[in-house]
Amino acid sequence: MIIGVLGPRGSYSDKAAHLWLTKEHTCSSLSKDISIKYCDDIIDTFDSIVTNTADIGIVPVENSIEGSVGVTLDLLMEHDIRIIGEIVVPIEHCLLSKGKLEDIRVILSHPQALGQCRQFIKGHFPHAEIRTTGSTSHAAKLATEFEEMAAIASRESATMYGLNVLLCNIQDCNSNHTRFIVFRKKHEDDDLVWKTPKGSVKEPDDTAKSDIPHRTSIIVYLDRDRPGALYDLLGEFAIRKVNLTRIESRPSKRILGDYVFYIDFAGNISDTIIKDALNSILPKAGMMKVLGSYEMM
Amino acid sequence: MIIGVLGPRGSYSDKAAHLWLTKEHTCSSLSKDISIKYCDDIIDTFDSIVTNTADIGIVPVENSIEGSVGVTLDLLMEHDIRIIGEIVVPIEHCLLSKGKLEDIRVILSHPQALGQCRQFIKGHFPHAEIRTTGSTSHAAKLATEFEEMAAIASRESATMYGLNVLLCNIQDCNSNHTRFIVFRKKHEDDDLVWKTPKGSVKEPDDTAKSDIPHRTSIIVYLDRDRPGALYDLLGEFAIRKVNLTRIESRPSKRILGDYVFYIDFAGNISDTIIKDALNSILPKAGMMKVLGSYEMM
Repeated sequence: MIIGVLGPRGSYSDKAAHLWLTKEHTCSSLSKDISIKYCDDIIDTFDSIVTNTADIGIVPVENSIEGSVGVTLDLLMEHDIRIIGEIVVPIEHCLLSKGKLEDIRVILSHPQALGQCRQFIKGHFPHAEIRTTGSTSHAAKLATEFEEMAAIASRESATMYGLNVLLCNIQDCNSNHTRFIVFRKKHEDDDLVWKTPKGSVKEPDDTAKSDIPHRTSIIVYLDRDRPGALYDLLGEFAIRKVNLTRIESRPSKRILGDYVFYIDFAGNISDTIIKDALNSILPKAGMMKVLGSYEMM
Repeated sequence: MIIGVLGPRGSYSDKAAHLWLTKEHTCSSLSKDISIKYCDDIIDTFDSIVTNTADIGIVPVENSIEGSVGVTLDLLMEHDIRIIGEIVVPIEHCLLSKGKLEDIRVILSHPQALGQCRQFIKGHFPHAEIRTTGSTSHAAKLATEFEEMAAIASRESATMYGLNVLLCNIQDCNSNHTRFIVFRKKHEDDDLVWKTPKGSVKEPDDTAKSDIPHRTSIIVYLDRDRPGALYDLLGEFAIRKVNLTRIESRPSKRILGDYVFYIDFAGNISDTIIKDALNSILPKAGMMKVLGSYEMM
């Protein structure tokens, strides 16, 4: 099995992959059967799954300070993938450099990490040049070049790339977590799990419900000219007492003011109640894409 | 009147300010009564309003490709301001430089503009160093220093800073618009417009409704442990046939999975129907902040 993550080594995605291995295989180390492919960016990570150069991808989807990772949401819409798991990683950003605090003129990091440390940067380095990199570990790798450069990255990256930890815990809120999703390429029959063929008769004893708490993620597009469309859709969850855990809008990229909605809710697509909800939403939505059900962390 | 915008001169915020002046004062040029204060970033623009060094602020709030401007949403929550208008600006990003296409090693721009040109950069300059700046016009100003630098900015910035337009219309979708909000410091009595004192008797003929289409923006925080809370809230709009134009979630910054909702809807807080809706939502929300009503563009 090849796991595609945002590289190079030492990124938070790398950490997420090891946490996932510990959880799934009760072993965090790699073996001859499991290897990690380090991708240049999130786009490449998705590409590696779609082109079969990796079996499983792990990418960040939201952070507790900076919110959604827009590019991940856009790629979930673009590609046919299936989410099979989630991993929550505590984030502790450090300022890493070969030089000293007073040498720093350039700060490098991933845009999400820069966003999470916005007040820190403005307060401590108002005149620094800010460079974005594909990942925090890539920033650490680049920061080895000059003493005037500092990377915002994990403590592990400091050890990995031989940098000094100048300051730690520099994010704008003490509590900082990122949720990662684990995904694979979509199989042709994936949607058969929940799709009820038209006119089918329900089995009266079909009350299957999984014991382990699951989360399901979907994307829906609603007709913007129909007032109350979103309310109507959320009603399908409300009447079934299904708990929404997240609702996020992204531009449809057609015109300003037109959105698609990313909805996460508690439950498994193999549960009768969730199947019912999805089959009721399907005819109401202009588009509905089921991204998958997975164990909640 | 001093208008605070993201500077330096030539930014899209600057363009928005001139469009707003044309609309409000039928005159796009500045005079001895109207001047523009160019701020370093969006945080400074809010600060200039709060500290009374500017009377009106104009900042980007959402883009049709890249979505919400997270920092603007966070600052709307943090500060006591009042939105008094909106401006939609068509965005046409160009690649500007003193050098030629083959010289370019460094690309500079604002993170939002970099996000809007993500595919372009990856396709044409996969190995370029990416630097973020406080604004697109600041990128243009910096790009005058070296021939190997290119800025992603407006065509106007090229003229303003003496740069060549190497490529134009480089954003990932042809149609690209940014919505800006116009705001001032909140007055003590601003909320009296819509707040109905408890136990007050409604005038039977109180059916005031403004003729010009307005949009109202609010922020609400809902108890995450109450399933159906969002559905319940949206119901207050649905039963009154009030059209939601946007709903966006942002992390509450407490814990992962806890959100505040930014809701825009059609109508004016001085309309009876909207007053009713807001007064019904107030006791249901853990927190509600009315940002203001303004003419829809």
